[in-house]
Amino acid sequence: MLVLGLDPGLALTGWALVEGERGRLRLREAGCLRTAAGSPEASRLLDLSDQADALLGRSGAQAVAVERLFFSRNVTTAMAVSQARGVLLCSVARHRMELAEYTPGEVKQAVTGSGAADKRQVARMVRLILGQEVPLSPDDLTDACAVGICHQHSRGLLRALAASRL
Amino acid sequence: MLVLGLDPGLALTGWALVEGERGRLRLREAGCLRTAAGSPEASRLLDLSDQADALLGRSGAQAVAVERLFFSRNVTTAMAVSQARGVLLCSVARHRMELAEYTPGEVKQAVTGSGAADKRQVARMVRLILGQEVPLSPDDLTDACAVGICHQHSRGLLRALAASRL
Repeated sequence: MLVLGLDPGLALTGWALVEGERGRLRLREAGCLRTAAGSPEASRLLDLSDQADALLGRSGAQAVAVERLFFSRNVTTAMAVSQARGVLLCSVARHRMELAEYTPGEVKQAVTGSGAADKRQVARMVRLILGQEVPLSPDDLTDACAVGICHQHSRGLLRALAASRL
Repeated sequence: MLVLGLDPGLALTGWALVEGERGRLRLREAGCLRTAAGSPEASRLLDLSDQADALLGRSGAQAVAVERLFFSRNVTTAMAVSQARGVLLCSVARHRMELAEYTPGEVKQAVTGSGAADKRQVARMVRLILGQEVPLSPDDLTDACAVGICHQHSRGLLRALAASRL
């Protein structure tokens, strides 16, 4: 099972292809979709959409995992990220791919065992789980790995639960 | 000059084709793009994107006008609207159409002469400007008319300014 984790943003969208085989996870590929800071917002959203379409088309992933957004402070940032997120979700639906969404707490819990873990703890666990070759920056790439791991873990849990009920 | 005014929303996006000819404005056509409440969010965003592509393709508009979002209270609503707005802006860029954005205050100012006008005053002025045949509901349709009028007025103003400098 191959999961594409996404961390949406207009300037930078982190992505990670997290593969699960017989209970072991590994990072097949990861990267960032970037749009040009100087361009008009609408053009950047189109550019993001085109890059996402290309990525989803070639990824071979069976599912896409994205964090739910919870913003309390900067509403302007929240709205800019949401616009990018809308374009990405649209692309996922266009490719008829399964979509899973997790709260930030669920992702932290799945990766570190604690829903209150900080960024550094998440980054360390992502590398322990997927290997030290996971790039150390940007954060968006680490976060994409984390949500991909979260979906693999929750699928594993569901499978185990289903098996225990047989 | 034909302007397409848009009032973005996931459930309901109001649209209005506002035509300006020799200083007079009239409503050529208006309506709503709707998505099914029971469907998954990503499918609704794709549905909205497809409907927007069809509308922009057949509209014949030379420009699209949209309100800038300013939310202070309900961040969840702000994020849902922003996701829909991102998909719509993406569609505008895909059709290589001119895009104009106005703050809510600018729209009210342009339509009623006061940036602090309430919804009822805006609705009344929209009907005085475009004619009583403008549907009275939903609000989203009236708001789409208002932002369309705003862009026509601001274009008229720019033209007058340019002429006065000759």
